Amino acid sequence: MSEWPIRIQITEVGPRDGLQNQSKPISTETKIALINALSKTGLTNIEASAFVHPSWVPQLADADAVFAGIDRENGVTYSALVPNERGLKRALDAGADEIAVLTAASETFSQKNTNNSIDSSIEKIQPIVEQANSNGMSVRGYISCVIACPYEGVTDLQKVRIISQRMLDMGIEVIAYGETLGVAKPDDIKRMYDALDGVVSPESSVLHLHDTQGMAIDCVAEAMKCGVISFDASCGGLGGCPYAPGAAGNMATEDLVFFAQQIGVETGVDLDALISASRIIERELGCKLQSKTYRAFQDE
Amino acid sequence: MSEWPIRIQITEVGPRDGLQNQSKPISTETKIALINALSKTGLTNIEASAFVHPSWVPQLADADAVFAGIDRENGVTYSALVPNERGLKRALDAGADEIAVLTAASETFSQKNTNNSIDSSIEKIQPIVEQANSNGMSVRGYISCVIACPYEGVTDLQKVRIISQRMLDMGIEVIAYGETLGVAKPDDIKRMYDALDGVVSPESSVLHLHDTQGMAIDCVAEAMKCGVISFDASCGGLGGCPYAPGAAGNMATEDLVFFAQQIGVETGVDLDALISASRIIERELGCKLQSKTYRAFQDE
Repeated sequence: MSEWPIRIQITEVGPRDGLQNQSKPISTETKIALINALSKTGLTNIEASAFVHPSWVPQLADADAVFAGIDRENGVTYSALVPNERGLKRALDAGADEIAVLTAASETFSQKNTNNSIDSSIEKIQPIVEQANSNGMSVRGYISCVIACPYEGVTDLQKVRIISQRMLDMGIEVIAYGETLGVAKPDDIKRMYDALDGVVSPESSVLHLHDTQGMAIDCVAEAMKCGVISFDASCGGLGGCPYAPGAAGNMATEDLVFFAQQIGVETGVDLDALISASRIIERELGCKLQSKTYRAFQDE
Repeated sequence: MSEWPIRIQITEVGPRDGLQNQSKPISTETKIALINALSKTGLTNIEASAFVHPSWVPQLADADAVFAGIDRENGVTYSALVPNERGLKRALDAGADEIAVLTAASETFSQKNTNNSIDSSIEKIQPIVEQANSNGMSVRGYISCVIACPYEGVTDLQKVRIISQRMLDMGIEVIAYGETLGVAKPDDIKRMYDALDGVVSPESSVLHLHDTQGMAIDCVAEAMKCGVISFDASCGGLGGCPYAPGAAGNMATEDLVFFAQQIGVETGVDLDALISASRIIERELGCKLQSKTYRAFQDE
């Protein structure tokens, strides 16, 4: 039995990645209540929204109001996804602590998701990173579709390696590897980190999993064995609704925290408080959250 | 991190516990093909059917034909559930290697499931055990509802302890603890084994889990920490159909084998062969099997 890490770092992405896919409008008040509740669970990193054009992601059109309305908890980093320089300006005005930028390891996905080729999306990231850094903001770089793409199938891991190197070269410190489809099996995670050897160490990376096949926690276990200690997760497994065909929720924060508890890995997160926070959003969504841990602990 | 066992013992209960709940009739030929395929996966214990009155469980009315039709694999124990002396006679005639008898830790469930009080069901077990033992057959004793009952709620663990003692006293060597509802959380498993302390050791018991809330594997992990090394599981997670409201499948053998592989615990079972076996039954059932591992490895 290989040893587990002592502690992992969780970035809660529910308010951004989770809510951007919901067809039902969520009020700004509920988003603020959710983020405030999440801030009191012991989570230290919350991706609170995205400063994108409202026509692109109408669900997050109120990012400025959300940032203005939340109570900033000491020790919590509130970040936002930023697709362009206009977004960066809004993030700076809103007082976001960190930003995230985005590209993909699949040309087709990159075109559909950001209306840019991979090359073009990386070029557009450059000035954002420079300006963020000059404002003292650190930047995380997402790479989507690191294992598979809904349009192109299995991802060439050499692409992931090359894009990682380009992101590091432009001053991005942390790369978040997005398993967008939620189809990875543990072996895929190991293969990816093997392919990144010498470019990005598992310890310095973030793994961002979806749970379409219920294998996200299995992948976490494998990633931990590879040395990964930072994970994205979404409260309640937000990110897909059972009523949406093919919906793929993010890995649930509850499932991750519960698994970590079982194997004796610290997260700093209070599971009960987390479940209470998720209830806020379940009530407004009106459809059941997918996290098995959230569901299993409902009737206590 | 507590250590895991080197090896666990799996009893495949899909052909009995899995198929007895299916509303769609399954042909004897398919059952035989399934059991033959399971026999070649490395599984060493298969609960192949039940010798019950056809009006009670019509799905298993062909138990005699199933036992007559299967190819006996060397090293595989083929067992059957037996509710009464008539059933035992059929099991002996059919050449079953082992039998299982049944009671419950809930009065209401015992009445509904076996039409007997707990006391009465245990009294009726006594002559079955004696006759089986005198024919050189070993007997496992199931206790249903060890954690919770659909009618009575949370189970009194002292009842489980007392029933265990009575079963041991009458010559039953192995007790299988049935978490019939599939609502147990890892702490519940630990509490149960704590309550059994001094009567049944975890090492000598079998844990029989259902996966209603997706927590079966979490419970397995906790049980392993308690010392349990024997588990029941059902290929594909058979035992409930997604089209049946509230259906609660057994813990899937695939999920158990995959989890064991990941943590380095031997099962002796070939996962690919197991998935192929499950496909036989999925084709005839016409509804998707619930095992996440089975599903995740479909497109390879």
